[in-house]
Amino acid sequence: MGELYRRLEAYGKSDVYPFHMPGHKRNGEAVKGPLAAAYGLDITEIDGFDNLHQAEGILRREQERAAALYGAGSSYYLVNGSTCGILSAVFSVTRQGDRVLMARNCHKSVYHAAYLRELKTAYVYPGVTEGWAEFGIAGAVDPEAVAAALRDIPDCAAVILTSPTYEGVVSDVGKIADIVHSHGIPLIVDEAHGAHFGFHGAYPAGSVRLGADLVIHSVHKTLPAMTQTALVHWSHNSSRGRDADRKHGVGTDDGALADRRRLERYLAVFQTSSPSYVLMASVSGCMDMVEKEGRKRLDRLLGYRRGLEEAVKKCRYVKIPEVGSAIRQDPCKLVIGVADGRMTGRELYDILLEKYHLQMEMAAEGYVLAIVTMMDGPECWKRLADALMEIDAGLRQGCGTAAVQRADMGGHRTGGAWMPEAEAVMPIAEAYDAAQEEIRMEDAAGRISAGFLNLYPPGIPLAAPGERLDGEIMETLLDYVRQRLHVQGIIDGKIRVVKEQGKNMETNGNEEGKQILTGKRCRKKIRKGSRKVI
Amino acid sequence: MGELYRRLEAYGKSDVYPFHMPGHKRNGEAVKGPLAAAYGLDITEIDGFDNLHQAEGILRREQERAAALYGAGSSYYLVNGSTCGILSAVFSVTRQGDRVLMARNCHKSVYHAAYLRELKTAYVYPGVTEGWAEFGIAGAVDPEAVAAALRDIPDCAAVILTSPTYEGVVSDVGKIADIVHSHGIPLIVDEAHGAHFGFHGAYPAGSVRLGADLVIHSVHKTLPAMTQTALVHWSHNSSRGRDADRKHGVGTDDGALADRRRLERYLAVFQTSSPSYVLMASVSGCMDMVEKEGRKRLDRLLGYRRGLEEAVKKCRYVKIPEVGSAIRQDPCKLVIGVADGRMTGRELYDILLEKYHLQMEMAAEGYVLAIVTMMDGPECWKRLADALMEIDAGLRQGCGTAAVQRADMGGHRTGGAWMPEAEAVMPIAEAYDAAQEEIRMEDAAGRISAGFLNLYPPGIPLAAPGERLDGEIMETLLDYVRQRLHVQGIIDGKIRVVKEQGKNMETNGNEEGKQILTGKRCRKKIRKGSRKVI
Repeated sequence: MGELYRRLEAYGKSDVYPFHMPGHKRNGEAVKGPLAAAYGLDITEIDGFDNLHQAEGILRREQERAAALYGAGSSYYLVNGSTCGILSAVFSVTRQGDRVLMARNCHKSVYHAAYLRELKTAYVYPGVTEGWAEFGIAGAVDPEAVAAALRDIPDCAAVILTSPTYEGVVSDVGKIADIVHSHGIPLIVDEAHGAHFGFHGAYPAGSVRLGADLVIHSVHKTLPAMTQTALVHWSHNSSRGRDADRKHGVGTDDGALADRRRLERYLAVFQTSSPSYVLMASVSGCMDMVEKEGRKRLDRLLGYRRGLEEAVKKCRYVKIPEVGSAIRQDPCKLVIGVADGRMTGRELYDILLEKYHLQMEMAAEGYVLAIVTMMDGPECWKRLADALMEIDAGLRQGCGTAAVQRADMGGHRTGGAWMPEAEAVMPIAEAYDAAQEEIRMEDAAGRISAGFLNLYPPGIPLAAPGERLDGEIMETLLDYVRQRLHVQGIIDGKIRVVKEQGKNMETNGNEEGKQILTGKRCRKKIRKGSRKVI
Repeated sequence: MGELYRRLEAYGKSDVYPFHMPGHKRNGEAVKGPLAAAYGLDITEIDGFDNLHQAEGILRREQERAAALYGAGSSYYLVNGSTCGILSAVFSVTRQGDRVLMARNCHKSVYHAAYLRELKTAYVYPGVTEGWAEFGIAGAVDPEAVAAALRDIPDCAAVILTSPTYEGVVSDVGKIADIVHSHGIPLIVDEAHGAHFGFHGAYPAGSVRLGADLVIHSVHKTLPAMTQTALVHWSHNSSRGRDADRKHGVGTDDGALADRRRLERYLAVFQTSSPSYVLMASVSGCMDMVEKEGRKRLDRLLGYRRGLEEAVKKCRYVKIPEVGSAIRQDPCKLVIGVADGRMTGRELYDILLEKYHLQMEMAAEGYVLAIVTMMDGPECWKRLADALMEIDAGLRQGCGTAAVQRADMGGHRTGGAWMPEAEAVMPIAEAYDAAQEEIRMEDAAGRISAGFLNLYPPGIPLAAPGERLDGEIMETLLDYVRQRLHVQGIIDGKIRVVKEQGKNMETNGNEEGKQILTGKRCRKKIRKGSRKVI
């Protein structure tokens, strides 16, 4: 159960009375019902329970156990989600105004770090998943693309990637780490969706052991811990190549590429000074289960998944795309699509929820995404298989809905979303803080975004502040709105753009916008492979 | 119980199966015992449960109820503690590198905001609590001191204060708000310890209704919500005085002194993108109790407190300082001291814990601090009264310990800690990011701090990066260490200082340091009333 959890439980049963915060005094009267008992564990930094921000006792031991599990130099329990791990990691390896190279399909928290840190951002775009083209899912980041970018842009202070993606696609982190280290800079991997990696041979290896310097894990996503809990891991890697003297960014005392002390400093800044022992106990219980039963449970999951895949193979329209040789996917992510445009992702999602009471993680244009974990028992797998078979049978009898088809569109794809390659005309911080105005989406084509537009989930920016909202992006966004997908940054059909001389919604004859309104497709600006440095 | 909590409970009982995060799948198997049931409520942003970062449904209604309770224009549920509310508030009203005027006894999170934002900081020091001199407790911030500072330093972008203090001392926020607004800038009040203000006439009024622009409340400190939950409130105040045109910092679209949209932007940055519905349900339950039973429970608390005070009046040595006319104190804070130096705060704290199983909030040099809330029943009040009477009886029979007496020391006091007025020689960010070294505390006098040294609790910096560690501060710190008080920033007797040309621990004959080692008191540098602007 974890030492912390056991100790908290024992303490909750003791006769020690709290003349301290929290104000509920371990008494769940304000939330009678299933939450009340948790109040008995909800203490503050009293004697014997250590302090997360300077851990020297029980919390230090807890974190050391996590470090041993993942093979890290140090690991840290996080109570403000992977978000605070990412903010802290980026801040620890950069100075204000530095440049970083990042994958364009990073989570918005990486963009938020870039905003606060006033970073100049250069991007590598993920590839397209060859065998999965019909589903429009982003692929891995090509190590060669990282190498080329670092050759072109020699002043990057760090490289930041997301692996696995929201759909479970894994990049070759080992090879990328070597390339990044040869330039004398650290690699940060947002492995939020891969906290279960490295515990079973049929699953991908973890980025800590593959050589990344800072790795962030959401333990609530694919492992059994409470929402908003996470880990960040630090490893002592050194610069490997002849270019070591070209190192940018932040130096360290001990030759490590990432500075542990600076990481700890920013964790204390970006996390509450009153961290929840309930959340920390949840991480403790999770680590305990991973250590004792992780391998066995992950193995069982593979068997259940194989059973479902066999069943779905009999379907005519419902498909679970096969993982080809060109792509490595995490077995905890289940992409379920419907062939021939018989049903959109949103429609499949709605039927599964309304008729079968199965709540999916996400609806994308052409598929739904399910997260399966070591906690799913055989009944739920059976419910899903039965539902999919029944839906397929219905489709064969012609009960489907014709869906939007977008197979002919170019551009990059991410998180189940198209990601047109955007033109960055201003750094993020400059545009986000610029004078701005709110305009109708239909009038926005050609303008510069003054905010983030994120399809949520997964929360990857389709447009970041400073990027030109070309016709293709606006069309994609309008499509999402029509499909009732949730796009953060659109409020009542309006978005925020940078104020520009001589441009406003009343006077500019916004031609691109008008074309969208009339359904006329804009000419795409294909600038594939271009990498503009601003 | 709150709409959110009721809905989550009903959902947890439904047959909807989660093919989404969190990975525990609402199954508490990893934490069998009191925490398991809470997992049933721990969902993610699924249909019908809104999104904290763009609240449009149930979370919007929850937050609107909080706004109505406190009289705010908008209120926001926080899951990363008051910390994220303070970071967001400071960021929303400043630009990188601005100057702010802040009370020197602000919580470390305000200093962290100043670090990230590279702010230049000017300070007002709290006064000394006249009637309470023997306990060394910081008093209120004098409105006249704020007025004088703003006259002297005309380019401040905002003013930031803590009221009430950790010991419950309340400043005249209404008067200070008027002064601050007359300069056309916003007032941020860290009212973390005053979330229960304004609901009963015998308690202080709340800062939102007194005119502050941004107010932060920890709902877990004096109200019955789970640890790391909080609120931030925004009010639409306008510049009031003739100096409105001298406004510095950030402008707003609508003439408000604080920009709501920018506040929301930073809340999305500083809080996890996966906020815990368990924590949000806890805030919901808390708001519900405050609304329905707050007044009645706060009234009952006053009665219990009066009973304890009557009992302690019969003691010879144990004292609860009387609240004089010059100072307003929150009834939820109970300062308990021992007269004539018969016992240190730490000794009283240890006896209450070890012999009586009563855990206090904090031990300071001359007293202990208890937090009492609307959730304390009559039994615990009786246990405390009985314990104090018995300890007093023991002291009369000569069983006390002679304590350190420091009555002759000057300087300012805070959070139960002496706060010598420090000389700031560099801005916080410059010193924190400067080349630094770790040296023994005994060698540090005269050097410039490269980190924060916080007595914890309450977490107020005794020294901030860039401040000169004079002999008085170092002596105070060494005293705390000897008293086994927890000082963040001291690790194994060492602290970090800025590297200076020609200074290091081997070669500099650090005279001040040596004087401390030999017990010789350093001459104090009294610069009371001085306000150096760097």
